Formats: sequence, structure tokens, C-alpha cells
Amino acid sequence: MISLVETRALIEAGKLTPAAAIGQCLAAIAAQDGDIGAFVRVDPGARPGPAGPLQGICVGVKDIIDTADFPTEMGAVAYAGWRPKADAPIVAELKRLGATVIGKTVTTAFASMDPAGTRNPRNQAHTPGGSSSGSAAAVAAGMVPLALGTQTGGSIIRPASFCGVAAIKPSFRFLSIVGVKPFSHSLDTLGFFAAGVADIAYAMAAVAGRPDLETGSVVNPRIGVVIQDFAGAPAPEGARALEAAIRAAERAGASVREITAPAAWGEIWRLHPILQSYEACRNLAWEHSTYGDSLPPRVKSELDAGRTVTAAEYDAAQAAAASARAAAQGVFAEVDVLLALSAPGPAPVTLATTGDARFNRLWTQLGTPCVNVPAYVAPGNLPVGVQVIAPYGRDGLALAAGRFLEKALGPVMS
Amino acid sequence: MISLVETRALIEAGKLTPAAAIGQCLAAIAAQDGDIGAFVRVDPGARPGPAGPLQGICVGVKDIIDTADFPTEMGAVAYAGWRPKADAPIVAELKRLGATVIGKTVTTAFASMDPAGTRNPRNQAHTPGGSSSGSAAAVAAGMVPLALGTQTGGSIIRPASFCGVAAIKPSFRFLSIVGVKPFSHSLDTLGFFAAGVADIAYAMAAVAGRPDLETGSVVNPRIGVVIQDFAGAPAPEGARALEAAIRAAERAGASVREITAPAAWGEIWRLHPILQSYEACRNLAWEHSTYGDSLPPRVKSELDAGRTVTAAEYDAAQAAAASARAAAQGVFAEVDVLLALSAPGPAPVTLATTGDARFNRLWTQLGTPCVNVPAYVAPGNLPVGVQVIAPYGRDGLALAAGRFLEKALGPVMS
Repeated sequence: MISLVETRALIEAGKLTPAAAIGQCLAAIAAQDGDIGAFVRVDPGARPGPAGPLQGICVGVKDIIDTADFPTEMGAVAYAGWRPKADAPIVAELKRLGATVIGKTVTTAFASMDPAGTRNPRNQAHTPGGSSSGSAAAVAAGMVPLALGTQTGGSIIRPASFCGVAAIKPSFRFLSIVGVKPFSHSLDTLGFFAAGVADIAYAMAAVAGRPDLETGSVVNPRIGVVIQDFAGAPAPEGARALEAAIRAAERAGASVREITAPAAWGEIWRLHPILQSYEACRNLAWEHSTYGDSLPPRVKSELDAGRTVTAAEYDAAQAAAASARAAAQGVFAEVDVLLALSAPGPAPVTLATTGDARFNRLWTQLGTPCVNVPAYVAPGNLPVGVQVIAPYGRDGLALAAGRFLEKALGPVMS
Repeated sequence: MISLVETRALIEAGKLTPAAAIGQCLAAIAAQDGDIGAFVRVDPGARPGPAGPLQGICVGVKDIIDTADFPTEMGAVAYAGWRPKADAPIVAELKRLGATVIGKTVTTAFASMDPAGTRNPRNQAHTPGGSSSGSAAAVAAGMVPLALGTQTGGSIIRPASFCGVAAIKPSFRFLSIVGVKPFSHSLDTLGFFAAGVADIAYAMAAVAGRPDLETGSVVNPRIGVVIQDFAGAPAPEGARALEAAIRAAERAGASVREITAPAAWGEIWRLHPILQSYEACRNLAWEHSTYGDSLPPRVKSELDAGRTVTAAEYDAAQAAAASARAAAQGVFAEVDVLLALSAPGPAPVTLATTGDARFNRLWTQLGTPCVNVPAYVAPGNLPVGVQVIAPYGRDGLALAAGRFLEKALGPVMS
């Protein structure tokens, strides 16, 4: 993988030109993307942006995020060739800071659950996860040092786990979601993939204009391992990954204890589909009525389901979400951060599913920042990640704790 | 003005066809819009939508709201001829319920403060207010029974006051803002203009799928009149409008008392420009960097100002807003609804400004539902409105109290 921080250090030391850094990404894409299929389209003439903290850094942008210079096709035939007027604010900010948008990465249709064709660079018979399939795969394959993704259920953290890369799902609305095709606006969250947590922290600090996101650290953190019985048991490889992370954290000085999820958390985990489908069928109402049965089947089925949810059911789900967020304050009174699996186990050996978001949707509902760290590699070169979860609004703490755990685990993926 | 409720009653009774109702709007537009300039463009072939609660109802849609069938030009040369891919969810829902989008209404550029050319139908030498200039004017002139607007400072309630129409700025995010060009995403709020509060309630109940928004009522409400010393004094005509509303409410059985705004409300009133400009310069970053000095001067100046706001200042403004929302709970423990002026006075006698939002921005920051009711007509046929304000999420109460006050005041505007 390409380290963003190392690339920037080389550029700042005059040992690598921004143009050469971009050339390396273009070469890696040319060499690998025919097999992987991480990109919808690439700019073969990509050039460095203005001088700035991200000059020379190539970014893959999930294809539900508006770009003025590339079509934005939402992974859907309905949007073939569609070109937005303006860059999404996150894209404009990356470019302002010097970054180069090298291309648009594959998304499942409307960031829902119909799989796209991208393969997992760690083992091409396996899914890379979704819906941010191309962004996770592009970073894992060493094609780009940074990529943008979004999560409504588990669309950042799960593909990061399957592909063995670092990623952040920040606090809800920490990064502006403007210019990103909405699915469920109470849940949609914009985030980053990169080789390591330090790379993520560097990018987050730059785009948010918050240097402290990069400079925080934690010593002997109190870590709670969350028992989510309602979400079912992990696969054996998942259990091994969580165990590896716990042991490494303890060796590095953390105190680790089990935490039983409050009842309110189980309730919003259960209600997630109600809330999501009610909003999705409204946000995609034009697509639903214009394209109907020609929409991909899982999108179509979710939009149909949303029409059966009543306003009272939706209100109840929102009220439960508020209760669950309130309950989080009690949990975080006892520990600094939480630790949970990023996925039930390694990537399934199929391209017909993007995997299961059952270990993700609680955190998306809570709006808490989550950082994926690869923790274990199962036979077949299949990574499994864990996520470090901090209180809402404490993204710097999530990143610092992620760096702590990453260092404690030592090299897991290259 | 055209009553939505009466139009629907005539259609349901078989005394008016949906096509004829649309024809009347087209005729009114043809007769008047040359002088008023409320519409950017109109569909001369407008036809009824499917059977439903809004069939035969023509809607004017503010031109920052995405429509697949019309260009959406944001009031800005930069977007001349720009056509979005999809209808905004609110537009799709109106059409699904049978309504006809008859055209796009004039907005100031990006819904900011550079005036557009629309004239006030009550007195054409005066501004109709803004930024939802065309929507307020189209309803006031009897061209349409319903129009969509948005408010970030005072862009719904102030033009409603200047034009003498009913309007609602609902609770923050009560109506989905998806597909509406963002300016300040913590403030942008979608709402309606119509001839009377019952018309607004009918439309809100239909699009939200919440019949109780239309059927609520209040008896002998406890009304608090808010003293906002920090916002300055009203014009004499404003003071008269507020006095008229208080006297009418008391005669109809309300108990009215003065309420001094909590200190936290003054603080967010003061910080509103900080929060708004920080978000606006990011949300319009592509436009800012692409068009620069060719942007309209007030937009350009606000985007420039936003770049000087630090993340710490923005965080402080958001924290103050949270404190102010918490303080609202204390205020509403003592009264059912609040009453305040919708604007300092009547519409200024100029087209070079859209007026002053100083009596609006507190409520936009608080996210509380506000309903404008015309209360007084100053010499020159210049209306002045008052707004009824309910607790966050109690939009049905705001509408019921608005109907109470409207009835108490009796006919003010025709």
C-alpha cells in the first residue's frame, strides 16, 4: 500500500515530485485495475494541484460523490454519463489543499446492497465488501494513498476490514455530506480509507482544518469490548481477530473490560432498517417512480419496503435512536473508547454479496466515530479488522486510539 | 389569492376540473407576471398529476430546488440553463400526491442577499423580500395556491410578511432538504407559502403523511410575546402589527404575557453570521473558486468572510446554538406558543434590498416551527406579519395556533 504520510515526507524533502507521485498511482492503476475493477473511470492526464498539505496525493472518490470534472454515475444505469455541475464540498476542499482526484471509484448502486464487480485485492475470489467497494480495494491494492467512502449501514468499516486497510467513519456530519447522493440522511456519513491510521489522521486534520486531529495520543487507555448479543455471534476468524486486538492492547498498557450493550442499543440495531428504508424511499422517490422495476433488485426491494413504513413507526425509530445516543454517555463514562469487530469475519468467497453489516449498523445509528484497524489475517490472505469507537464528536480520540492499537498490533497487512 | 383548500373542495365536489384549476393559474401568470417577475420559467403545457390530495393544485418551486423537468438556475449566472438529473424529494412527493409544478420561482443568487428583480404584488415599488422572492410574490398575486421556499436567515417568513401571505418555516429538517442547494446546512429549512394557514396545514399534512398536522386546534392558548432587545426595535408599523395580533388573540381567549429572551438566545442571534458563513464558504467552495469575483457581491462577500472563521469559532457557535435550544425548553414550559414580529416593519420601498432578517435568525437557529400570519396593513397597502412559534417538533401546534390567530384577526389581506 502507499503511505500518504511517507509520500508527503518524500515530497517535502524534495525526494519525490508531486507529478512523480501521481505517475506512480497511474502506473499502479494501469497494472492492476484490469483485474480488480476498483475504478469507474480514471483521469490519465492527472496533474498535481496547488501547493498545499495534500499536493501529490491521489484520491479515489466514490462515485456517489459529485465531481465537476468526472461523470458521477451512482453505480446505476439510470445515471450513466451523468455529470454534476459542481464538486461536492469535500472534493473542492481536497483539491484546494493540493490533492489530485485521480478517478471515481466503484460503488454499489446508490450505495445500497446490490454488489458491483470489484474484486478484493487480497484474494480476488472474495468480495471487497461494499458499498464503498472501489475505494477500499483501490487503497488495498496500492493504487492510491487515499480514498473517500460513505457509510449508511457498514459501507466504510466493513470493506476496510475485508480489504485490510485503515478507515474512518467519522462522527455523524463531522465531514459535510453535501454533494453526496443521499440514501438515508439521518445515517449517511462521509469518511476516508488509507494505508494506516496516521494517513487518515493527516487527511482528516487537513480537510477539517483541525490540526489536533493528527497530534493527539492516548496512554494506557481504558477500553470496553462491547458484547452485542443482538447482532449474533462472529465467525471463528472474527473471534480470533478480536482476541488478537485485546491481547495486543493489553500488552501495550491498555486496561480492557467487557461491556454489555445497553438495551436501547439493541433496540436501534433492530430498528435500523425501518429508519433507513423510510428515508431512502423518499430520497430516491424520483428514481423509484421513474425507473421502477429496472432498478437493481435490492435497491428496489428496500424502496418498496420503505413505502410500507408509517410516519409513527419512523418517529418511534428516531426516538429510539435518541435514547440510544443518550445511553452512550453512560457507557463512555466508564471507558475511554470501545472496541468491536468491524465485520463478523473475513470477506465471503463470492462476488454476489457485499457481506453483512450487522456489526456496523449500531455505530452508524449512534453517530460515533469508528476507526478500522486490521487485526488478523485468516488463511487465504483474508484480513479481519476491529473498530475503535470514541464518543460522538471525539474524532481525534478515535484516531489516537486507532494509532495506539495499530502500533500495539504491529504489521498486519502490507 | 387562490385558496388551496377551496380549490380542492371545488374539485372534489365536481365543480372545477383539475385542468381548469391549472388553466386559471396559467391565465393569472400570463396576466400578471410580466409586471411582478415571480417566475423564472413556467410550463405553458402544465397538466394535472395523478388522482390524489393535491391534484389540480399548482405549485411554484423556488429555483434552488432540483427539478428534472425544468432547469434549476439558483438565481445565478453560473447555473444558467443547468438541469438537475432528479426531482428533489419534496418535488417528487408533491407530484406523487397529484400536484402540478407549474414553474420555477425567482430566488436571490444561492438564496443569499443579492436582490433579484421580483416586485411586491401589494405595491410594486417595494421589495417582496427574499430570498424566496418569487414564491411569496406568486402566492400574493394569486398566480398559484402553493409555493415552496427555503429559509437560512429569514427567507420564508420575511417575504411572507412583506407580501401578506401565510407561510411556514417548519421545524429544522421536518421536511427533507435533500435536492435543495445547500447554503448553511445547519440552518437551511424547507417550507411553504399559501393564501391561508389552513392551506399550509393541508399541504404539510399531505406531503408529510401526517394527517394530524391539519386537524389540531388550540383553545385559550398561553402566548408569550418575546422581547428581543438584542435584535433592535421594530418600525412603528411593526409595533402596530404586533399590538393588533396581541389584542385579537386576547379577544379570542388567549392569555398573553411578555417573555424576555434568555441570554443564550441573544448569543446565537449574534453568532448566526459566524455559523452561516463558515458553512456557506465550504458548501459553495466550487462556485467560490470557479467564479470568484463574478459572483454577486453579497454572496462573494459572505463566502470570503467564511474563510476567515476558524474551526474553534465555528465550534463555539454550534455550542451556543445547542445551549440556546436547551434554553427554549424552559421558555416553553411557561407558554404554549410564542409570538414575534415576522419583520421589523413593512417592505422597504426599493428593489435594492430584500430587507432585514434580524427578527428571523433567532428562530432559524433554534429550529422551531414558525408560521407567518398577516396582522396589519400599513398605508400603501403594505402588510406586516407576525409569526407564531411552537416548540421544536410541534409543527401541528404551530399551525393550529396560526389558524387561531388568523381567525382572531379576521380578514387582513385578500
